[in-house]
Amino acid sequence: MDVIKELKGELGEKVLTEPEDIYAYVTDASNVLRQVPLAVVRAYSTEDVSKVLRIANETSTPVVVRGGGTSLTGASVPVKGGILLDVTPMDGIEVNVDDGWVMAEAGATVAKVDQECRKYGYFFPPDPASSRYATIGAALAENAGGLRGAKYGVMKNWVLSLEVVIPGGEVLRIGKPLYKWRWGPDLISLFIGSEGTLGVITKAWLRIYPLPEKVVRILGLFNSLEDAGRAIFEIRRSGILPTMLELLDDESVNIVREQSGLDIPETEAMIIVDVDGPKEAVWRLANQVTEIIGRNGGKAEASDDPEEMKRLYAVRQGIYAAVTRTYKGVLIEDVVFPVSKLVEALREIKKIKEKYGLPMPTFGHAGDGNLHPNICYDPDDPEQVKKAEEMFREVALLAIRMGGSLSGEHGIGLTKKELLVEELKSVNSLGYLKLVKEIKRVLDPKGIMNPGKLYP
Amino acid sequence: MDVIKELKGELGEKVLTEPEDIYAYVTDASNVLRQVPLAVVRAYSTEDVSKVLRIANETSTPVVVRGGGTSLTGASVPVKGGILLDVTPMDGIEVNVDDGWVMAEAGATVAKVDQECRKYGYFFPPDPASSRYATIGAALAENAGGLRGAKYGVMKNWVLSLEVVIPGGEVLRIGKPLYKWRWGPDLISLFIGSEGTLGVITKAWLRIYPLPEKVVRILGLFNSLEDAGRAIFEIRRSGILPTMLELLDDESVNIVREQSGLDIPETEAMIIVDVDGPKEAVWRLANQVTEIIGRNGGKAEASDDPEEMKRLYAVRQGIYAAVTRTYKGVLIEDVVFPVSKLVEALREIKKIKEKYGLPMPTFGHAGDGNLHPNICYDPDDPEQVKKAEEMFREVALLAIRMGGSLSGEHGIGLTKKELLVEELKSVNSLGYLKLVKEIKRVLDPKGIMNPGKLYP
Repeated sequence: MDVIKELKGELGEKVLTEPEDIYAYVTDASNVLRQVPLAVVRAYSTEDVSKVLRIANETSTPVVVRGGGTSLTGASVPVKGGILLDVTPMDGIEVNVDDGWVMAEAGATVAKVDQECRKYGYFFPPDPASSRYATIGAALAENAGGLRGAKYGVMKNWVLSLEVVIPGGEVLRIGKPLYKWRWGPDLISLFIGSEGTLGVITKAWLRIYPLPEKVVRILGLFNSLEDAGRAIFEIRRSGILPTMLELLDDESVNIVREQSGLDIPETEAMIIVDVDGPKEAVWRLANQVTEIIGRNGGKAEASDDPEEMKRLYAVRQGIYAAVTRTYKGVLIEDVVFPVSKLVEALREIKKIKEKYGLPMPTFGHAGDGNLHPNICYDPDDPEQVKKAEEMFREVALLAIRMGGSLSGEHGIGLTKKELLVEELKSVNSLGYLKLVKEIKRVLDPKGIMNPGKLYP
Repeated sequence: MDVIKELKGELGEKVLTEPEDIYAYVTDASNVLRQVPLAVVRAYSTEDVSKVLRIANETSTPVVVRGGGTSLTGASVPVKGGILLDVTPMDGIEVNVDDGWVMAEAGATVAKVDQECRKYGYFFPPDPASSRYATIGAALAENAGGLRGAKYGVMKNWVLSLEVVIPGGEVLRIGKPLYKWRWGPDLISLFIGSEGTLGVITKAWLRIYPLPEKVVRILGLFNSLEDAGRAIFEIRRSGILPTMLELLDDESVNIVREQSGLDIPETEAMIIVDVDGPKEAVWRLANQVTEIIGRNGGKAEASDDPEEMKRLYAVRQGIYAAVTRTYKGVLIEDVVFPVSKLVEALREIKKIKEKYGLPMPTFGHAGDGNLHPNICYDPDDPEQVKKAEEMFREVALLAIRMGGSLSGEHGIGLTKKELLVEELKSVNSLGYLKLVKEIKRVLDPKGIMNPGKLYP
């Protein structure tokens, strides 16, 4: 059976095989590996996805699902060739304000889903920095987080119901778009974090949240990174529950300043804090935050001016792009620490940086304990490549040793498979991996779904 | 191999076999079936649970886990005999405010966990009406909900990490007590809603939430049940996001009044609404609620007096007990409707009540669309028994037909296995059941875990 002939017979012009058509699909934002797929299928419907998974299963052809291609771990690189399933044409969105949900097809971007909800006075809280490109299906498959996680959590906290296509082409519906439903085991989270290795999420019904009446954004500047860490811990501990609680170190701030031309002051560490809530209360809460910043040696400025707030947000959202424009090689970490150990973690990360001598701008969702040290190197210098890889491993092992995790939101993909084993060992959880592999065999006995990823 | 001898060899006096010791375990709050187990094991540690699951697996002996025995669907009745595993001695609780979680062993009650958190200015939001007896392990296995669900959701929304023992005795750790962690598929929710059919939850690390600065409780009285339904929908739709949004019909109110001796006014329908948040804002939000109640023909009274608030809460929390004291036979529904269809649902439920002529006090978490019609009958009258069973089925099918669900929080257990199939058919989800059964075979190939429950 000729896979391409079969695909074209069922899906016609949705199947792309010409080199110029498929070249854009050889890698993703991770840029760690490049591989040309056998064919790209642009899916327009659940039925299209079902056809692809039937043909792929019959012919034992690998299938890699791709949304916006923003993975930083290589999750959407077709490392074993096969079919690259592009779900971006499936981008329908339906808001049901009366019942408090939004239905999004896999290819709708996270930002578009949020925008649609805002037309009705609601919003969709998870907000990955790549939200303008990242798609709902992929954000769920990766359990993405983002800038509003300190208060609103990650993707998995917002799912009411899923439609999933599994190998063979069967369409599975899990749950209903209700505030509550109880079947048996809640299989939803089986697909959350599965990185396309178990099936294809085609539709999701997601909870939405009323827009806060007011937001105040606070900029905090510190002469010491550790002071900033202490302030973050105190803010988190105070019970204020900020929406956003971001940290940028000096290197990060300098890079954004150079790249953006924005007028950003010199500083050792910057934090950006959002406080939201009922209009009468937000300024008082914001003042509590500025007080905590002051108590920890920082200088704070709070604002509810939309332009000023947008400017600050752009600083944070644009930083990874600025780093990759500055350095040819970047390995981005996604480590998590218990918030109570944030100060110690920042100290240890600095030691690692000094030991290796490579630039490592560090920023992230520190309010969640989630940091993104960016290890920057020259990919044409073998010695720097080696150093960078060692640094990457050392930072991840530090997180594991301190009771944290190697990933908060970017996932495992290609780049963290071996490190995942280290983390599982640290909590005696190799049984988790065994069980996940057995469940994978139930759903995908031929191993066609995103082979080479996730499972060491 | 003699199971009891083996158990006593490993667990000594934790194994109970004398009739007077095990009689309390023959049924649970559902009271639909009674069965004497072969033995009761009182587990004091994860190791104890592991020993039981090793011996049970080796001897193919059924294992039924039991917490407080508050299941309303028969989930903890040992219908096939075997080992009744009582986890209530495992009741350790550890609050870590700095990192925002509480660790609870399976047998700790939900109320105790909440109380411990309150010592530190935090609380544990899920609040089943049975929280003084319901245990954490069981509340997770059932994905319990409760009175604060309108704002804070159900058990599954609060889990960071689980420790689970699976058949054969292996201890599995899933995740870490961090705001974020990303391994592969997030297997946590596999055990949420599994009703003890896949393994035993022994420990859970749960997110905690800062105590609201202020709560105002509003009582709304209506001359018409449908008006109350309309008010509930409008409150929910307003974006106020009340913590609690409960409905009681006239029959429910009358029963509580008679049983409690409390001074509760005559009314066709009562709603109880909690609004929480920062101190400056709560009264304004409460006033918005009273306005909505007034606009829909109701009479509202708001209070922040702790005694008055406690009194109202007791009315709602005590109602199911009052119903079971009033009627010998009670079948409790747990149906969910889309909130936008609540008024229609209340009208249709009333029609069913009139058709059958049995008492059916109806109350519930209407803000979530979750209602508990209580079908009351005389168990010694075969005609009433038959009628009650038909009514039960008709109400559940109504919910399914209206896009709702047969259960919001009580689960499937013994009493809803056939109805679950109807619901799955209604959304073309029989594939869900097939997959769940295949995963069950992976974890529990001998089918020892809570046999006879959940899976039709």
